[in-house]
Amino acid sequence: MPVNHLISLVKPELERVDAIILDAAKSEIDLIPKLANHLISAGGKRLRPIFTLACAKLCGYEGERHINLAVAVEFMHTATLLHDDVVDESEKRRGLETANNIWGNKASVLVGDYLLGRSFQMMARDGSNRVLTILADAAARIAEGEVMQLSTTKNTATTEAEYIEVVKAKTAELFAAACEVGGAIVEDDVKENNLQIFGENFGIAFQIVDDILDYSAEPAKFGKNIGDDLREGKMTLPLIKALSKSGAIEKDFLLGIIEGEVELSQETLTAASAIIRESGALEESYRQARDYAATARVALESFEKTPLRDAMLAVLDYSIEREF
Amino acid sequence: MPVNHLISLVKPELERVDAIILDAAKSEIDLIPKLANHLISAGGKRLRPIFTLACAKLCGYEGERHINLAVAVEFMHTATLLHDDVVDESEKRRGLETANNIWGNKASVLVGDYLLGRSFQMMARDGSNRVLTILADAAARIAEGEVMQLSTTKNTATTEAEYIEVVKAKTAELFAAACEVGGAIVEDDVKENNLQIFGENFGIAFQIVDDILDYSAEPAKFGKNIGDDLREGKMTLPLIKALSKSGAIEKDFLLGIIEGEVELSQETLTAASAIIRESGALEESYRQARDYAATARVALESFEKTPLRDAMLAVLDYSIEREF
Repeated sequence: MPVNHLISLVKPELERVDAIILDAAKSEIDLIPKLANHLISAGGKRLRPIFTLACAKLCGYEGERHINLAVAVEFMHTATLLHDDVVDESEKRRGLETANNIWGNKASVLVGDYLLGRSFQMMARDGSNRVLTILADAAARIAEGEVMQLSTTKNTATTEAEYIEVVKAKTAELFAAACEVGGAIVEDDVKENNLQIFGENFGIAFQIVDDILDYSAEPAKFGKNIGDDLREGKMTLPLIKALSKSGAIEKDFLLGIIEGEVELSQETLTAASAIIRESGALEESYRQARDYAATARVALESFEKTPLRDAMLAVLDYSIEREF
Repeated sequence: MPVNHLISLVKPELERVDAIILDAAKSEIDLIPKLANHLISAGGKRLRPIFTLACAKLCGYEGERHINLAVAVEFMHTATLLHDDVVDESEKRRGLETANNIWGNKASVLVGDYLLGRSFQMMARDGSNRVLTILADAAARIAEGEVMQLSTTKNTATTEAEYIEVVKAKTAELFAAACEVGGAIVEDDVKENNLQIFGENFGIAFQIVDDILDYSAEPAKFGKNIGDDLREGKMTLPLIKALSKSGAIEKDFLLGIIEGEVELSQETLTAASAIIRESGALEESYRQARDYAATARVALESFEKTPLRDAMLAVLDYSIEREF
């Protein structure tokens, strides 16, 4: 697994990040570590803090600041996951019961707020205004993206451009910030800019593939059910493309599902997923994901060829090829 | 109204704060300004940003930074209100329908996150690490206080000390931070410390009175129903005191209400509220609120006697005497 190879190159730093995360999520209030650890230990890939560590090293940084900033990035990510699951009314994440399902929405909202506060505390400790600006902008943009997604939900007029806007804000923004912070530490504008471009395009490609997998992955591997996005009326790229590529009968059926005129059952969802797969929408979505990945690759190739850089490129390739 | 007099002393600054708030809550995403403005225009007293402005002036500050920081404080407050209403499942705030009731919990969670991000953007723009530390600490502590409150809800073993801990975190912390920021701008540790003490003790007194009013105010003025806290099982000071002061029959009735063994109806809530009032718990709670207010007064009296200082002291007195 390419991610494991990248992890091996930042291992000592990542271990310190993990230790700080577990320590900082501590609180005298029982529920906070319980809930935070549930999510943090759920076997997430920690891709964002790994990128922060890797990007700082790629810029030749040899200090300590990237450790705390990787923690800040992961806390911000964890906070958005907790709030996302409340918003999506999700019951599962990565195959595990979600925190909101176990402890209730209230706890998820508040512990998310707590972790966000913790995240900004880490930034205050770091003391760089540039870093704070990058991450505060990300926090506002992510929430904006989520609100935008609310308003595109079940909106069958959603365009591909609107979908990309949502993805840029809700997913790519934090990947971009996680990477950009690496360059901001060494105060190199060119490197910072290239890392931002890498992170943003990686994030878009990553999310498109996630949205494809919702229609094509094996449920056991993916940790959620096929067609969940369709059930929730999420206007993702495969669905938008399928609507424009399908014949009249298939299109009407999809519209019926989204608009709630066709009853949602295992049969109708399976039929709708098949229409989407057979429309060629998944292949076209993959093509588009690959274009974003190519842009990310070019930005990263502006850095000198090193094992670390190549490990990041391998993760980029894998983000497209992965099956879950 | 003493608050109006204080407002008149910071009027030009407050008008700029209002303009920035309305402008900054703008977003291309329709729902964000709609929801933010609903709350911001709901006629809130804006007490926290007013304190930030007043405290900075009290420290002799003559620059511009307190304007943006007052906005940051108000955004943080608004974000916590939005999340609070989701957590409390509130239907009304200040007599108006709550945002979560109109637009749903999802929008309230996300727009709260957006405003919190905006708040930290304002701090990034300000550039002071000291200010960022104060407000990031406050953000984490407020959420901690709310989680703590969740775990004391319907917990009849809650002590007065635990109640005060919750109030310090969920309410007093932001008042303290709003005031402290005024001293942090001029980098005067003694003033900063005194303003922090003023804000914290003001906040505790303010919340105790709020919790008393839940049992004694006229609903039309107070904007919520008498006994709402009891209905929700909130272990506030009047209730905790009433439990320890009532006779066996009255105590059992109150316990029955909190623990859900007595049916909640207008009659039983009215009877329970009467028990609390007749136990003398409200008077004792007032006495305690006055003690905190006295501590706040001493801290503020360390500043030179000016019309501004005296206007703040008048607001302090009013926070105890108010009937809604």
